[in-house]
Amino acid sequence: MKEQIKKYFSRYVEFSDTEIDEIYSRLISETFQKKDYILREGQICKSNHFIISGLVRSFYIDNKGNEKIAQFALENWWVTNMESFINKTPSRSSIQALEKTEILIINKEELEKLYVSIPKLERLFRIITENMLIANQRKNDIYFQMKSKDRYVSLINHFPNFTQRVPQYMIASYLEISPEYLSELRKN
Amino acid sequence: MKEQIKKYFSRYVEFSDTEIDEIYSRLISETFQKKDYILREGQICKSNHFIISGLVRSFYIDNKGNEKIAQFALENWWVTNMESFINKTPSRSSIQALEKTEILIINKEELEKLYVSIPKLERLFRIITENMLIANQRKNDIYFQMKSKDRYVSLINHFPNFTQRVPQYMIASYLEISPEYLSELRKN
Repeated sequence: MKEQIKKYFSRYVEFSDTEIDEIYSRLISETFQKKDYILREGQICKSNHFIISGLVRSFYIDNKGNEKIAQFALENWWVTNMESFINKTPSRSSIQALEKTEILIINKEELEKLYVSIPKLERLFRIITENMLIANQRKNDIYFQMKSKDRYVSLINHFPNFTQRVPQYMIASYLEISPEYLSELRKN
Repeated sequence: MKEQIKKYFSRYVEFSDTEIDEIYSRLISETFQKKDYILREGQICKSNHFIISGLVRSFYIDNKGNEKIAQFALENWWVTNMESFINKTPSRSSIQALEKTEILIINKEELEKLYVSIPKLERLFRIITENMLIANQRKNDIYFQMKSKDRYVSLINHFPNFTQRVPQYMIASYLEISPEYLSELRKN
């Protein structure tokens, strides 16, 4: 796990082995089984979560009482509810494992201490947060700018193996299309 | 202007006067008239924009050909198209002044140089980007979790003077409700 996170960090910022050791010592490793919750709506989200292996979804209940998927997250991706994490307010979304999922957890207080002792982490998380924002905006583009068919094509272009790992009804929910129409698109 | 940005920065990170001078020397001041474009869809967004005074909207054309407002931005707020800014891809959205608007512009290359010479800026923009992400997620909450009336109440609670500055049809577009229903809500 340490090798994986070291390799991931070095995409953006180079850390010494001593720095990696210090960061790694503050992370908590936890394994979630399929359907386990990492965060439940209404809880205060106290940590950010780096996915070592597996797959999670973040979702919320819309004003009609339906589950809506805001995000899927795979290996080498971070997932949290940013508003709850930063402002210590109850989370409006839940995060749930869709497969057996190994996660490295960084607690907010530990992260704040690390920012002080290893200021280069500011750069790393500045870049990670930019990427999270881009993913969020891209999700909005899918909803509002693309037609149903283009949404599906965009998804399989970005994540080729993804559609084999996620139940079809969840993909339909994420793309905001009907399961019947998704099934038709998959036949073509 | 320098005083305003210094005061704004000091909410998050303390900079010395020398550092503020260096940062300020890299910023370009520009005034946009009402209806002027700061960024047009299809252009590559080369800068991030700090609003000194005025009001802008960022918007895009949806898959039915209608304008959709993604964000309003007021004094002391940053606005850019993050994906275009970071990845140098054509922007999917436009940014337009709704009033006479004074902006401080930071070019991407200049910002990268500043990150190197004043590493504390990484912290500042890590926090600013978190806030941008939170605003983006909150916008999604408005769309998907709130009923029409609650959307309007949430808007006037967050920005009390805002509804006097923006044409009603734009507020209706932002809240994804009909102008007729907005007019009814405002009577209550």
